[in-house]
Amino acid sequence: MRKGRASIEFEHAPHIICGASVVGPKEGAGPLGCLFDFVDTDGKMGQKSWEEAESQLQKKAAELAVQKSAVPRNRIRYAFAGDLLGQCVASSYGMEEEGYPLFGVYGACSTMGETLSLASMAIAADYAEYALCVTSSHFASAERQFRFPSDYGNQRPFSATWTVTGSAALVLGQENGIARVTGITTGRIIDYGVRDSMNMGAAMAPAAADTICRHFQDFEAEIPSYDKIITGDLGVVGQKILIELMKEKGYDISSRHMDCGIEIFNAEQQDTHAGGSGCGCSAVTLASYILPLLEKKTWKKILFVPTGALLSKISFNEGQSVPGIAHAVRIEAI
Amino acid sequence: MRKGRASIEFEHAPHIICGASVVGPKEGAGPLGCLFDFVDTDGKMGQKSWEEAESQLQKKAAELAVQKSAVPRNRIRYAFAGDLLGQCVASSYGMEEEGYPLFGVYGACSTMGETLSLASMAIAADYAEYALCVTSSHFASAERQFRFPSDYGNQRPFSATWTVTGSAALVLGQENGIARVTGITTGRIIDYGVRDSMNMGAAMAPAAADTICRHFQDFEAEIPSYDKIITGDLGVVGQKILIELMKEKGYDISSRHMDCGIEIFNAEQQDTHAGGSGCGCSAVTLASYILPLLEKKTWKKILFVPTGALLSKISFNEGQSVPGIAHAVRIEAI
Repeated sequence: MRKGRASIEFEHAPHIICGASVVGPKEGAGPLGCLFDFVDTDGKMGQKSWEEAESQLQKKAAELAVQKSAVPRNRIRYAFAGDLLGQCVASSYGMEEEGYPLFGVYGACSTMGETLSLASMAIAADYAEYALCVTSSHFASAERQFRFPSDYGNQRPFSATWTVTGSAALVLGQENGIARVTGITTGRIIDYGVRDSMNMGAAMAPAAADTICRHFQDFEAEIPSYDKIITGDLGVVGQKILIELMKEKGYDISSRHMDCGIEIFNAEQQDTHAGGSGCGCSAVTLASYILPLLEKKTWKKILFVPTGALLSKISFNEGQSVPGIAHAVRIEAI
Repeated sequence: MRKGRASIEFEHAPHIICGASVVGPKEGAGPLGCLFDFVDTDGKMGQKSWEEAESQLQKKAAELAVQKSAVPRNRIRYAFAGDLLGQCVASSYGMEEEGYPLFGVYGACSTMGETLSLASMAIAADYAEYALCVTSSHFASAERQFRFPSDYGNQRPFSATWTVTGSAALVLGQENGIARVTGITTGRIIDYGVRDSMNMGAAMAPAAADTICRHFQDFEAEIPSYDKIITGDLGVVGQKILIELMKEKGYDISSRHMDCGIEIFNAEQQDTHAGGSGCGCSAVTLASYILPLLEKKTWKKILFVPTGALLSKISFNEGQSVPGIAHAVRIEAI
């Protein structure tokens, strides 16, 4: 059922059957390390290049998720997949052998929010019995794509985030899951004119604020009815801005806000500065940490809001600003 | 209603309310020149860079389509947009000011098929009353993205296609349209191991053959019941391969096949070699040439099958093959 300007409340809420996460060694050594399904020893996943390694992360996450779900492969009707690389090649090569009918999506680091939204829409409308959502990012492939080759050893300012090496896959279905997607609010592009590719938190926070506000307006909901409001990869810089912006709009989320980018690393010990980022950041945190807490009913209802910064190396070099987008997914315990 | 493994037949078929097309001067001088809504004089759309020009093409196409549709902007619930540039920046900057809740998609040159599929699913399920589909490509931004800077003046083999400078936007709704989307078949990734970035037709033809065959199987339909089977940008090289591959699978489409890449340029006079290509190619041909023939009922039923080659400059330089994908959309006269 449509709600407000850009939200949907699902009458038959799709179920999240299970999730699987595959990460690199740095993520494995972080605070969530013991929760991931697979930790690679060197982040290359046995491949020759970082890009191939990222595809391999997706492939392994998808295979693990489908295995865990016990859903026969031929009943998974669609895969929704995306990543940060130019022309989404991590997904193309990662999902190639899987053979699922594929909708490629691009929402920068908000991609897990976008894939979950579209897969939920497909399942709730009975277009699919089961669907797969997959996203990934890789520190080394992203640095090469957006900033400097890692060998160059450039200095990272404190506002910079560390791209997570990881992929998560979720199997969604019509019943028998561990949590339910009860509603979505689709993001629009918000541009505050940020031009610093080392401060993505500031570029994305206004988009997160916009989507979260519209969610509460569309659903006529109150902040306290949500156990957590979880953004993707704002980091400590973006978190401050988000909480400020929300206060200006009349919402105090300070006690309920959590950011996957802040949770995934120990910033001080791991030298990750403002936090983790990348499509993989919110995705692996959802699969390994958030979903189990919903399954255990520690949390009853959360708003999962991955945030994306819409830039490319070319747009950055041509002096364009960095607009943001954020897609909100309301997930509830069964 | 689900059909077969990867198709949907819509019980309440979404309507295409209207389409609008905006192209560059070369396309304007081609065989379809007089059909486009707007032809730019120099392909820069008054912008400083080719990338900004491409965003401007999208913006103008979207504005024209919404204007022509006479649908109030606030009733257009979602935009589905994508392009060929790294991180889909043509869409991000092109759709930014429009302010629609946005699903960014990536399907390379199959993107118009993917946006039409997703928008149709959203409308048929009553998630949206109206939705907008937008895609674009630009010769100069694509050459820089995938091959050589155009100033370099590299020699183009005869298998090469010419990326169309153009964008089209379609407004879809629940009624009162000029044609109906009655079914879709979603593509999967098909890789025949082609490694030549100057022969995209050969890379995409197997994906087109796969999707078209699955469409006819899923719908238990016969070739003669379709007036045309229209691929996106296979060009003359890919067309031959497609017809051969289809024959091997027991389908003779030779008398009904049309390729937008072949239609859009006069290859001999315009020196475009194998034909046109790019997200914009099938999109502007659909909006300007195909839809009016469906509106006039010259054609009753067509299968629109844009084809995408899933490569990036990095994947190509790293020696990866070029897999393809194709999304089929069945469009019928009202």
